Amino acid sequence: MNPINRQLLLKTRPEGLVRQDNFELHEQAVPELAEGEALVRVLYLSMDPTNRVWMTDRPQYMPPVAIGEVMRGIGLGRVVASRSPRFAVGELVQGLVGWQDYAVIREAHAKDWVKLPPKPPVALPTLLGACGFSGITAYYGLTEIAPVQPGETLVVSAAAGSVGSIAGQIGKLRGARVVGIAGGAEKCRHLIEDLGFDAAVDYKAADFKQQLAAATPDGVHVNFENVGGPVMRAVLSRMVNGGRVALCGLIANYASGEKPSDDYSVIIVKRLTVRGFLAFDYRDQQRAVQDLVGWVVNGQIKAGETIAEGLENAPQVLNRLFDGSHTGKLVLRVAEDQ
Amino acid sequence: MNPINRQLLLKTRPEGLVRQDNFELHEQAVPELAEGEALVRVLYLSMDPTNRVWMTDRPQYMPPVAIGEVMRGIGLGRVVASRSPRFAVGELVQGLVGWQDYAVIREAHAKDWVKLPPKPPVALPTLLGACGFSGITAYYGLTEIAPVQPGETLVVSAAAGSVGSIAGQIGKLRGARVVGIAGGAEKCRHLIEDLGFDAAVDYKAADFKQQLAAATPDGVHVNFENVGGPVMRAVLSRMVNGGRVALCGLIANYASGEKPSDDYSVIIVKRLTVRGFLAFDYRDQQRAVQDLVGWVVNGQIKAGETIAEGLENAPQVLNRLFDGSHTGKLVLRVAEDQ
Repeated sequence: MNPINRQLLLKTRPEGLVRQDNFELHEQAVPELAEGEALVRVLYLSMDPTNRVWMTDRPQYMPPVAIGEVMRGIGLGRVVASRSPRFAVGELVQGLVGWQDYAVIREAHAKDWVKLPPKPPVALPTLLGACGFSGITAYYGLTEIAPVQPGETLVVSAAAGSVGSIAGQIGKLRGARVVGIAGGAEKCRHLIEDLGFDAAVDYKAADFKQQLAAATPDGVHVNFENVGGPVMRAVLSRMVNGGRVALCGLIANYASGEKPSDDYSVIIVKRLTVRGFLAFDYRDQQRAVQDLVGWVVNGQIKAGETIAEGLENAPQVLNRLFDGSHTGKLVLRVAEDQ
Repeated sequence: MNPINRQLLLKTRPEGLVRQDNFELHEQAVPELAEGEALVRVLYLSMDPTNRVWMTDRPQYMPPVAIGEVMRGIGLGRVVASRSPRFAVGELVQGLVGWQDYAVIREAHAKDWVKLPPKPPVALPTLLGACGFSGITAYYGLTEIAPVQPGETLVVSAAAGSVGSIAGQIGKLRGARVVGIAGGAEKCRHLIEDLGFDAAVDYKAADFKQQLAAATPDGVHVNFENVGGPVMRAVLSRMVNGGRVALCGLIANYASGEKPSDDYSVIIVKRLTVRGFLAFDYRDQQRAVQDLVGWVVNGQIKAGETIAEGLENAPQVLNRLFDGSHTGKLVLRVAEDQ
């Protein structure tokens, strides 16, 4: 008999933070594989701000998850059954596994799955973080979108998070002065003492703007932006004329029901170049992954993850992206790797 | 006895549209020139959105005009007296003449004044419009900031205005499909029939968004943006992935007391590159001016001006930038060229 597949189906679109009852935990037997298909036991789910965007029906880069569908999510797992010549049992793969115990690789989507080395040189959660999309996003943001140069000042927001922590460390490798923005003294300490940032600024502090000004005496040349809202406004006010913004995320907006109140004027006043980007667009991810794995293995970049447990908890765990109660990559363990 | 110089002094900062009583008309005799100075009889004032910004104390690229100061403004005039070796009586010059009858060229600022040919090949108002900063702005926006390529779709907002009308025509010279956005049927007719745009869309029409979609069946590759607000939002929603925005102005915001409600999200979703710029930054303006004068003289670009009369009317005339009651470059004639 086929094993039971637990699936989290989107029942209603959340307003603000995600509620458990926005989802239905549905159980059904894993279906028989058709010719060309393979079955993946999901091991880890990547918890990403984009999950929250996919739950909405606002304009976005992929279709919203439909009501009643399995929640979309990036993750990795092992092939446990295969009728596909491309995938062998035991292989480790990454892709849009969805919020469920088992994912079927359809023949038509086989090329969208990435094969990972069966015995990777870094821990599995790191393959979703520093050496996965988070790291890839940081990598292209600072090499292609807004290449930061030695001696320039780089400001990274959500700097203790999955993308920001890698972006800051890549900035250091490129010779920049790196200032991180994070919430609370402990995260700021972590950025400086553990990750080697030059300075860290606490956005929850009453004197946040003064701290930011003091940390950027020469202004800001490059802003790697993950947050948006008031934090981004403060950074933009410190930009030098001709500064560059790698616009990676606007997490302040994703779970907020409020209307955005950005202001394009500063882009003119400071002659900024603001470039939005998605790591998904970079098909040549092998170069980034090779560099990132190398840096992690030889200790030039420190990977960090917060690991939560249990598929059924995914909705609540996702909220930790928005309340700041995690550091590094937020990952959900669905099953132990056997 | 020296002639009387009428000056418009900023008395209070306007909210919304400019009121006549935000200014004081002050009269005083032209002062004696010091060694190294020259005196300019102002002939034409350029009426620019930036005048409105200079009246505010919000962050901007030059210091705000101080209360009690002569209002800052670009214009041109003739040298009528000189104790400077650099300027001879009878020469035509352009610079920050201010809202007054006579401007003194200080020795320290002499290099900021541009000498024009004494008998220019185009009309004097055109030297402030198609062949002045308006044309230069359009030129650099579409050659350096967001170079438009043959076959691409370019959308220009405020397309019947001073910068937009030239931007659209430069887009045509570069082989783009050019769509203009303007207010009202007559302006739309003007864009297509007089200026050679491929299509024109009336932002005041109830079906504006549908018109815009119909005029951009392949999406929008480049947006030359002068307006901001809801018009810009509509254009951004039509951008192709990877599209480029030359962010020239946000006139919708300048005279509005409302808080901007832009949304940076679209920059990520569509992977846009948004670049703000100021024509003032381009020191190498000679190339642009030469090209523009050539295009106007040989008829490849049609220059157009709306000419109002009387220094004392400057505050009211400036409002015509915001109510759409002008076409092409808005210029104020202060005195007849003798």
